[in-house]
Amino acid sequence: MYRVDLNCDLGESFGRYKLGLDEEVIKYVSSVNIACAFHASDPVVMEKTVALAKGNNVSIGAHPGFLDLMGFGRRNMDISLEEAKAYTKYQIGALYGFCKSKNVKLNHVKPHGALYNMAAKDYSLAKAICEGIYEFDKKIILLGLSGSELVRAGEEIGLKCANEVFADRAYEEDGSLVSRKKEGAVITDEEEAMNRVIDMITKKQVKTISGKKIYIKADSICVHGDGIKALEFVKKINKKLKEENIEIKPLSQVL
Amino acid sequence: MYRVDLNCDLGESFGRYKLGLDEEVIKYVSSVNIACAFHASDPVVMEKTVALAKGNNVSIGAHPGFLDLMGFGRRNMDISLEEAKAYTKYQIGALYGFCKSKNVKLNHVKPHGALYNMAAKDYSLAKAICEGIYEFDKKIILLGLSGSELVRAGEEIGLKCANEVFADRAYEEDGSLVSRKKEGAVITDEEEAMNRVIDMITKKQVKTISGKKIYIKADSICVHGDGIKALEFVKKINKKLKEENIEIKPLSQVL
Amino acid sequence: MYRVDLNCDLGESFGRYKLGLDEEVIKYVSSVNIACAFHASDPVVMEKTVALAKGNNVSIGAHPGFLDLMGFGRRNMDISLEEAKAYTKYQIGALYGFCKSKNVKLNHVKPHGALYNMAAKDYSLAKAICEGIYEFDKKIILLGLSGSELVRAGEEIGLKCANEVFADRAYEEDGSLVSRKKEGAVITDEEEAMNRVIDMITKKQVKTISGKKIYIKADSICVHGDGIKALEFVKKINKKLKEENIEIKPLSQVL
Amino acid sequence: MYRVDLNCDLGESFGRYKLGLDEEVIKYVSSVNIACAFHASDPVVMEKTVALAKGNNVSIGAHPGFLDLMGFGRRNMDISLEEAKAYTKYQIGALYGFCKSKNVKLNHVKPHGALYNMAAKDYSLAKAICEGIYEFDKKIILLGLSGSELVRAGEEIGLKCANEVFADRAYEEDGSLVSRKKEGAVITDEEEAMNRVIDMITKKQVKTISGKKIYIKADSICVHGDGIKALEFVKKINKKLKEENIEIKPLSQVL
Repeated sequence: MYRVDLNCDLGESFGRYKLGLDEEVIKYVSSVNIACAFHASDPVVMEKTVALAKGNNVSIGAHPGFLDLMGFGRRNMDISLEEAKAYTKYQIGALYGFCKSKNVKLNHVKPHGALYNMAAKDYSLAKAICEGIYEFDKKIILLGLSGSELVRAGEEIGLKCANEVFADRAYEEDGSLVSRKKEGAVITDEEEAMNRVIDMITKKQVKTISGKKIYIKADSICVHGDGIKALEFVKKINKKLKEENIEIKPLSQVL
Repeated sequence: MYRVDLNCDLGESFGRYKLGLDEEVIKYVSSVNIACAFHASDPVVMEKTVALAKGNNVSIGAHPGFLDLMGFGRRNMDISLEEAKAYTKYQIGALYGFCKSKNVKLNHVKPHGALYNMAAKDYSLAKAICEGIYEFDKKIILLGLSGSELVRAGEEIGLKCANEVFADRAYEEDGSLVSRKKEGAVITDEEEAMNRVIDMITKKQVKTISGKKIYIKADSICVHGDGIKALEFVKKINKKLKEENIEIKPLSQVL
Repeated sequence: MYRVDLNCDLGESFGRYKLGLDEEVIKYVSSVNIACAFHASDPVVMEKTVALAKGNNVSIGAHPGFLDLMGFGRRNMDISLEEAKAYTKYQIGALYGFCKSKNVKLNHVKPHGALYNMAAKDYSLAKAICEGIYEFDKKIILLGLSGSELVRAGEEIGLKCANEVFADRAYEEDGSLVSRKKEGAVITDEEEAMNRVIDMITKKQVKTISGKKIYIKADSICVHGDGIKALEFVKKINKKLKEENIEIKPLSQVL
Repeated sequence: MYRVDLNCDLGESFGRYKLGLDEEVIKYVSSVNIACAFHASDPVVMEKTVALAKGNNVSIGAHPGFLDLMGFGRRNMDISLEEAKAYTKYQIGALYGFCKSKNVKLNHVKPHGALYNMAAKDYSLAKAICEGIYEFDKKIILLGLSGSELVRAGEEIGLKCANEVFADRAYEEDGSLVSRKKEGAVITDEEEAMNRVIDMITKKQVKTISGKKIYIKADSICVHGDGIKALEFVKKINKKLKEENIEIKPLSQVL
C-alpha cells in the first residue's frame, strides 16, 4: 500500500495580523511546518500553533526562513554559510522551546520560501542548513524539494531526507520547478493536479512542461491553507488519496 | 568555606557592531548570561559566544530581554503575561539550539535589563517568566535580584533560584536597588564596593543608603566586561575573593 | 452651521499581511491618519496609501507610533523625550517623502495607540512629540484626545490643535476615556453612540460614565475601517451627520 | 584649478552601539552620507548627525540602504523595483525630516553597500532608485560609482549626477571595481592610492588591474572614518589634494 505525507505551512500570523485558516487545514494534513518568527510569526503565535498541532495530533516541523518579515522570506538574500547555519539552529531551537514545553517532538525541518528555493539549487547553502540541523539533532528529518541539492546535501550529511512534490506546479526536465514567471508554471485544473500527484506517488513519475516523463520521488505533498480555495483543494486531495488507497501518514512513517 | 558565583553578560555584539571584552572578562567569571537576539546579539554571535563559553569552561545561562534592539532592552515595555512567557521560551529555546549543538548545558536564566527590573517588582510578570522557564526545563536555575519578586516567583513555581547582588550599587532598606536617578545610587569607590561584597557573602548583610544594615543573600555577583575599567574591576574582585578564601564557583555548585 | 472632521487610520497593512478596508472607508471620511512603518505599514503600503488618499481627495495626516510592529504600537514603552522627538520627526519625514513626491499636503499628525494614550496624560512626552512636529513644520495641525495634555502641549508650543472625540467610548468626569478594562468603557449601542456625537458637536458636552455632563470640544471624530461592522458604522455616522446638517470637513476647515 | 568632493559615510551608530569617528573625520571632508535607519543608525543618531554636519558646515546627503541591520546592508537582497523606489523615498524623507527641522539642505543621495553595488550593474534597479529620488526632489544630486549603470540611469531620468571613485580599490577594464574576492582588489599602499586619486582627478584616467589605462571621471572620492587608520588616511589625502592645488568642495560646487 502506498503512503504519503501531506504537509502545510502553519502559524504565519504575526501580532495583530492574521494569516491562514490554520484551524481548518490542520484537520486534513499529516505534517505542519511552523514558522519561527524570522519571515513570519511571533512567539505567542508559535506557542499557540504548537498547541494546535499537538491537539490535532499532526507531526511538527520547523520552517526556518530569512529574517525578512517585510518580504515574508520570499526575497533572495545573499547570506554567508556561517549565517545560514546559525540562523537555522536559532530558529529550530526557538521552535523547540515550545515543543519541549508541551512535550511534543520536533520531527522535521523544511526551509521556507526563498531559502528553500535557493538551497534547492545551491549545494553549499544547502549543506550549511543541513549541518545546522544535524548538529542540533541528527534524527530530525529534512524536507526538501524532490531531487534537489537540498535533499542531496541532507543525505550526504547523514540526515533522513523526505522529497517534497507540488500538486499545482509544473516541472522542468531536470526535476526543478518551472519558474512562476513562465507560462504554464501553475497547474490550475484541480483534477489534473490531483492526477499528477497520484502518478507521482504510484508511478514515481511526472510529465514535465515539455511533455517528457521523468522520475520523481514523492514522500510528501505540499498543500496550503491560506485561503478558502486552497483549503477546499486540501480537502479534495485528502479525499482523493484515500479513494486511491494511499495512506496519509507523517514523514516518520513514510520514510 | 564560602562560595559565590561571578556572573557577566556576554555576547552582546550585533552584526557589524562590536560590544564588550568577551574574550577577556570570561577568564575571571564562573557564569555568563548570553544574549538571545532580542535586545542584543544575533545568531552568529550566539554561536560564537556559546563556543567561547564552552572553551573557557564557564557555566552558560540565557539572558532573555525585551524585543527592543534600539533600546538595548533597557526600556520598560508593557507586555502581556502571555507574551512574557512566550518570549522567555522562545529566547531560551534559541540559545538552547546552540548549546545542544555544542553539547553543553544551559544552566540558568537571568532576565535582562528592563525585563529584570520590572520582574523584580511585579510578581505577575515574574511568575509568567518563571513559568516559561519551568515549562521548558524545570531544572534550569533562575538568577534574579536578591530578595526580589522574581526570586519569590521562581521559588513558588519550583525553580532553583539564585540571588544576585551588585557590588557597585546602593540598596534601599527593602532590599531593592537605589534608583540610578538618585544621588549615591552607584558605589564608585572600588575598595568600598569589594568590601561590601565580602560582607554580603560572609555576613549576609549590606548597609543600605540610609545607613541601616539589612539581611541579603548573595549567591552570585554581577560584574561587567563592557569596558577596560569594568574589566579591571572584575580582575580585582576575582583576586579579592580568592584572598578572602571565597571560592568562585558556578551557580550549580553554590546553591 | 456645525462642522466636524471624520478621521480614520489608514494604511496599516504590512508586507503580505493585509489589514483594513481602506478603499471602502476612505469614501466616508474627511481625514486619514497614515501609518509610518513603525507600528504598522511599510514603504510600499505608504506609497499606495498616499496615492489612495490623493485619489479620494481626503486630507492626509501622519500617524507616528512606537517601533513595535509585534505589538502594533499598542504597548506602552518607556522612551526618553529625546527619542520621542526624534521618532516623531523621522516618521513625519518618511511620510512626507511620499506626500512631496505626489504633490499633496501633509496636514496633520495624530500619534498612534500607546503613544497617543501616554501623551494624553504625560505633558513632558506630549511636549516632546509636539516639538518634533513644530520643528518639522509649524503649520501642521496636531490631532489629539479632546482636552488632553497632548492638546495642551500642542497649544503651548504654538501648533494649531484639533480635539478628537470617540463615538463608541465612555468618558470619565475629567474628560479622559474610561479604561477598556472597566465595564461600560465601550458604547455598543450605535444609535446612542451617534447621539452622543451629535451632542458633543452641537452642545459641546458629553454625559460621563458617572452620569454627569461635562464640557467637551469635538473637532474630529475617530472612526475605524478595520472590519465590516466598523465600516457600516462609518456609513451610518456619515449619513447621520449630514441629516443633522453637520458638515464633514477636513481639519483645516474645521479649526 | 581642479575641484573634487571628499565624501564619507556618517551616523552609522545604532542605539547603544557606537561606530565611526564621526566627530573627527567630518573635519576633513566636504560631503557626508548619512545613514537612514535601514542598514544602520536610528532616529536619535540621525538627529545628532544632521546637527553635527550642520555645525561643521559640510554638505548633507542621504545614504539609503537595504532594511538589513543585521547584515549592515551589505548583503544582496532581491527586492522588486516598486520596493526599491518606495524604500528610497521613505529613507530620503526620513532624513529630510531632520534636515528641514534644522533648516539645512539635503543635497545628494548615495545608495549604500549592496544596494549601491547592485544598482551599479543593474539598470532597472538603478532607474527605480533614481525615480524615487527624482519624484521626491529633482534637484537632488545622485552620487554613484563612476561610469556605472546607476549614474547612467540618473542622467537619463534627469538628475544631476556625480561620479564617485575609490582611492583604495583596483579597477577592471570596464570601469567596475575589482571584486574583493580577487587578489589585488584593495590598494594597501597609501602613497600609491593617493597618486591614483590625483591621476583620476587631473588626467581623468586610472590604471586597471590588468595594467591598461582607462578613462574615469572623478567628481567625488569616497573615504572612511570607521577607524584610526582610515581617519589618518583621510587627513593625508586631504593634505595631499591641497598640496596639489586641488580644491575640496561639496558636490554642488564640483558639478
